[in-house]
Amino acid sequence: MAIIKVSTLAQLKVASAQLLGSKKSANPGTLGFVPTMGALHRGHAALARAAVAENAVVVASVFVNPLQFGDAVDLDRYPRTTEADLMLLEDAGVDIMFAPAVEEMYPSGEPAVRVTAGKLGDLHEGASRPGHFDGALTVVAKLLHAGRPEAGLTEPDKNGRLPYRAYFGEKDAQQLALVKRMVADLNFPVDIVPVPTVRDDDGLALSSRNRFLSAKERESALILSRALRLLRRRADAHEPLDILSAEELVHMTPGVELDYLEVVDPQTLQVRAENCQDTPFTGEALALIAAKVGPVRLIDNIKLG
Amino acid sequence: MAIIKVSTLAQLKVASAQLLGSKKSANPGTLGFVPTMGALHRGHAALARAAVAENAVVVASVFVNPLQFGDAVDLDRYPRTTEADLMLLEDAGVDIMFAPAVEEMYPSGEPAVRVTAGKLGDLHEGASRPGHFDGALTVVAKLLHAGRPEAGLTEPDKNGRLPYRAYFGEKDAQQLALVKRMVADLNFPVDIVPVPTVRDDDGLALSSRNRFLSAKERESALILSRALRLLRRRADAHEPLDILSAEELVHMTPGVELDYLEVVDPQTLQVRAENCQDTPFTGEALALIAAKVGPVRLIDNIKLG
Repeated sequence: MAIIKVSTLAQLKVASAQLLGSKKSANPGTLGFVPTMGALHRGHAALARAAVAENAVVVASVFVNPLQFGDAVDLDRYPRTTEADLMLLEDAGVDIMFAPAVEEMYPSGEPAVRVTAGKLGDLHEGASRPGHFDGALTVVAKLLHAGRPEAGLTEPDKNGRLPYRAYFGEKDAQQLALVKRMVADLNFPVDIVPVPTVRDDDGLALSSRNRFLSAKERESALILSRALRLLRRRADAHEPLDILSAEELVHMTPGVELDYLEVVDPQTLQVRAENCQDTPFTGEALALIAAKVGPVRLIDNIKLG
Repeated sequence: MAIIKVSTLAQLKVASAQLLGSKKSANPGTLGFVPTMGALHRGHAALARAAVAENAVVVASVFVNPLQFGDAVDLDRYPRTTEADLMLLEDAGVDIMFAPAVEEMYPSGEPAVRVTAGKLGDLHEGASRPGHFDGALTVVAKLLHAGRPEAGLTEPDKNGRLPYRAYFGEKDAQQLALVKRMVADLNFPVDIVPVPTVRDDDGLALSSRNRFLSAKERESALILSRALRLLRRRADAHEPLDILSAEELVHMTPGVELDYLEVVDPQTLQVRAENCQDTPFTGEALALIAAKVGPVRLIDNIKLG
């Protein structure tokens, strides 16, 4: 069935209600929501396919949210590829693409009432991008509300899975952790489904920003995933992580400016200082890395333990 | 039918789903939610009856939210009258009373991710009670999510009314304005229904805190509604409001310590300075008053124009 493109909140509700009521599915009364900023790649396709596999109706939003960009230049040059996005979503089996204008999402200008990430929003990515996570959580809250149909959902299944699910990539690890935290802290009636990072064959995590890398910069960018895999090998062997040596590898790579390489608790995002350097690694953690490669800021992460 | 009392989020979802599926109603597939802090009086009964009149199922919550009290003593002595509350709600026709423990609402302690009222939360009541509205909006967001059933709601009616409605008293004017703002800014799928303030025969607005007034203090407290009615008479006559003279009346009342008397825009809550003093009143506004009477802080408000 051809994908339906809508641009207003009202159209979205009508379209999803209609499909929920009419479309045959092995999972009646369920709706999957995939929020994106467009410039879609195979990572987004994996999100969309995960949603299509287990929901009667799937909605993907494409909205570049001004509220989460501290830098007007960065906002301005964020890639917009709406036609290609539509085709990618259709190929993945998405039913509805919701692509609102800024005025549709923020009809009164910047919102007065917002969601705030609190202190968790000041860590890691937040330290480099003040206000980023408040803006991101605010638009995710709006989209989760906007994407939920009024009627036509079913009761939770016997495992307690809710009928409304939203799909987020593990690539943006801190965003995923904060969205989960928001849903728990504010009791949003939605299940958050994490989807593994998709990588190119050489290990580079897919990102809408990769297109801005030159061939040489792209080669240099591989050090991010290599440094993470080094930490994982050490963690798997229960060796000390020796983060300093991993940082050194990044520093030695031409054209790469390391922002941070940190080992954190997956839920609380607090640095696991006791596990970073000389003691043998135990338990579970997440290694986060951010670096500037040429003109582009890249992030990546890997699970440890 | 006897009211059902539940204390967990899971019980609430089960009970409302069951009733939505079974109860006969002129308004099938609709649910009214009445959030309260207990210590219920006829003002709350009016909220409950407004909800009962137009919904298939009505849930009232009774939860004294620690997050919105700046003062531990104030939180501690806030009246708790659960048995009487249950009877009042049952008499009003409410189906379910949701009375969670603090640990049910905040299982991980204070929430990391919250809703913030921004600058609007620093005005008027917020100036006297820092953080109050952030705490209030955060728990209202949680309750609005918790009270929404997963399934069983109907589509919006032909006037665009949503099937899920929440009822708030006009007595807490700034709270009502901020809740409306939150619902608009964050796209909550709920209709906010304002319910007029209920007053005693002598004009005193009903409040759970009135019980702490001595007979003499109660007499003094009448100046709040009198000052507001004075402003309304002037507004109705298109005279200058001359707020200073109204303030003077309050100041002259023994045992009353005026906090503020302000004329504001009903939506933006900004002070309408141009309409407060010497020019003839035009347009629409809200007059807000707050004062300490003996040991009790009271608020009231009236619509102008």
